[in-house]
Amino acid sequence: MDDARYWRSVVNAIVSLIDEGTFNISKEGISLKAMDPSGISMISFSMPNKAFSKFNVEKTTPVGLNLGNLSKFLDRSRDGEQLVMKDAGNQIELTFVGQNSKRKCTLPMIDAGKDPEKEPKIDFESRVELKSDSLREVLKDVTLVSTYANFKTDKNFFLVTGNGDAGKLEEEHLDSADMIKKLDVKKATSATFNLEYLERIVNGCPSDTTISLSLKNDEPIRIDYMIGEASFIYYLAPYLES
Amino acid sequence: MDDARYWRSVVNAIVSLIDEGTFNISKEGISLKAMDPSGISMISFSMPNKAFSKFNVEKTTPVGLNLGNLSKFLDRSRDGEQLVMKDAGNQIELTFVGQNSKRKCTLPMIDAGKDPEKEPKIDFESRVELKSDSLREVLKDVTLVSTYANFKTDKNFFLVTGNGDAGKLEEEHLDSADMIKKLDVKKATSATFNLEYLERIVNGCPSDTTISLSLKNDEPIRIDYMIGEASFIYYLAPYLES
Amino acid sequence: MDDARYWRSVVNAIVSLIDEGTFNISKEGISLKAMDPSGISMISFSMPNKAFSKFNVEKTTPVGLNLGNLSKFLDRSRDGEQLVMKDAGNQIELTFVGQNSKRKCTLPMIDAGKDPEKEPKIDFESRVELKSDSLREVLKDVTLVSTYANFKTDKNFFLVTGNGDAGKLEEEHLDSADMIKKLDVKKATSATFNLEYLERIVNGCPSDTTISLSLKNDEPIRIDYMIGEASFIYYLAPYLES
Repeated sequence: MDDARYWRSVVNAIVSLIDEGTFNISKEGISLKAMDPSGISMISFSMPNKAFSKFNVEKTTPVGLNLGNLSKFLDRSRDGEQLVMKDAGNQIELTFVGQNSKRKCTLPMIDAGKDPEKEPKIDFESRVELKSDSLREVLKDVTLVSTYANFKTDKNFFLVTGNGDAGKLEEEHLDSADMIKKLDVKKATSATFNLEYLERIVNGCPSDTTISLSLKNDEPIRIDYMIGEASFIYYLAPYLES
Repeated sequence: MDDARYWRSVVNAIVSLIDEGTFNISKEGISLKAMDPSGISMISFSMPNKAFSKFNVEKTTPVGLNLGNLSKFLDRSRDGEQLVMKDAGNQIELTFVGQNSKRKCTLPMIDAGKDPEKEPKIDFESRVELKSDSLREVLKDVTLVSTYANFKTDKNFFLVTGNGDAGKLEEEHLDSADMIKKLDVKKATSATFNLEYLERIVNGCPSDTTISLSLKNDEPIRIDYMIGEASFIYYLAPYLES
Repeated sequence: MDDARYWRSVVNAIVSLIDEGTFNISKEGISLKAMDPSGISMISFSMPNKAFSKFNVEKTTPVGLNLGNLSKFLDRSRDGEQLVMKDAGNQIELTFVGQNSKRKCTLPMIDAGKDPEKEPKIDFESRVELKSDSLREVLKDVTLVSTYANFKTDKNFFLVTGNGDAGKLEEEHLDSADMIKKLDVKKATSATFNLEYLERIVNGCPSDTTISLSLKNDEPIRIDYMIGEASFIYYLAPYLES
């Protein structure tokens, strides 16, 4: 990989939701599907072999790793370093190659559960495309009053609300608003989600990236974005008031 | 209000001292008088109607609010947003109006005690005008040795001292010093104040603002500054060694 | 002293290792030798009289100080302030002289043990000169996996390794690497050191400074650097696996 920092941003997007996971490494590329430990959200990640400057895989291998530790190593990458990842038996070798310096980290492989999860099939009724940074700010606003955020879409607006002891918050963004890239509403929708999980998913997304939210009444939300060639899909179960 | 950030700096100056308070809203403007819960300091704030781009008040109303929560909402204001504040029955609506986006916070009104406090009448004997940032630095210095600061004024200097186990600190600023804007001494004065309260009052004041200290021997200090058209007066009881 | 900040960086380099110490002040200059409380490292500091813009010492005096408190005072120095240090009986007076402002701190002298420690005599077999910032980064890397770092030198490389539950780290820097200024190896060496102490010593060194490491198999490391005219020598005992 020509730029160690790219792989770092990819791993950070995964580690925002899960701490351990199994990469599935095949000739086509790398993928990972996992649920977070609480079971209310899942991530489906894939990255094609062409995203790597050299990709040399003979047989399909599952590689279970402590992603928290992997992420800490990657956070230490320096400007202009190349990254070489190598399967070395029951461990993974990361080598950061700089100018006449070589930094090698070896991580033990772990058993993080190998069965790929199935993605839910939902016939979504509306879709909002917006800037990652703007969505992050909206979610921060809502944390002032609640631990849940309600997302509503209608013909020409996207509405986010929260409610709690400290007060009530209601943010209306017209389809013509700066932060909205696209608003596609077949049917008006409303669903409420755990704010902490929304924030973890959105915080994994780099700045200045387009995020897509797919919604259906009281159904899981699907959140999509790309980091370069790598694709990230998250699902988060709705909060249903009883 | 054309600039939500202006109202934010006003509220931050109040919230540095008290966490709940009652705004008195009349045709003339907004005012607030309150003592901090410990009873050793008070704030008297007023802001004329002309400080608002539109001010529409029919009858005098007391509006009790959790100022800590209000301040958190205002901290979330974005560049270039207008702010509309509205009395909506037993709650206050703050609407931040941006480009095709509208963010509305609703805060419940609370009973924060309505009786305006009387300001102490003191015949001050000296007055120091100085830069807020410089005073902040002086107070930070004194925290290294003590939890109290003594302020002395004399013909041509302003002296701040602190004393404790770690050592002694003595800062002499001549009337010609950069940080001193004006020194007006009818009679030399000396008084000692709780450093935490001094810091809270001074920290509420924006950068690059002139602060005025009025002093009399072993009497409360009066601290004045303006943020735009809004006027802030604080009183802080002296610490008297027994 | 024309620049209070210079003396601040000198004291910060000492305080990174010890919290109390005795300066030995003689006609020739100031020096200090001390072991850290755990006894596994020592510092030998000296600064010639010519490093001061005015140096007026009549008789050799030991000055024991709480260096932590001294450092806090020095951290509060402002741009362009001169510093005057004066022995005032059983206390030390630091005066920061600015434009028509004078800030005076008085620190009590303490008894911090007066006997100068002897420096160990070691016939080192290799020496590495490298940039302080690069070494800091290398040590940070190693903290991800261990609380110890092994330093190895050989003909043409300097190798740092760490080992722990989270994985293994190995950093190889050729003598031609950017961060290596000079590599002088009479004999290949290997020794392991407590990472916390290494970090404390190296963190005391300003940015963009050359650090020299002198090594011998399983013997204490000697770490040298200069801040202006002031010379710092540290020794740190090796960690020997039993």
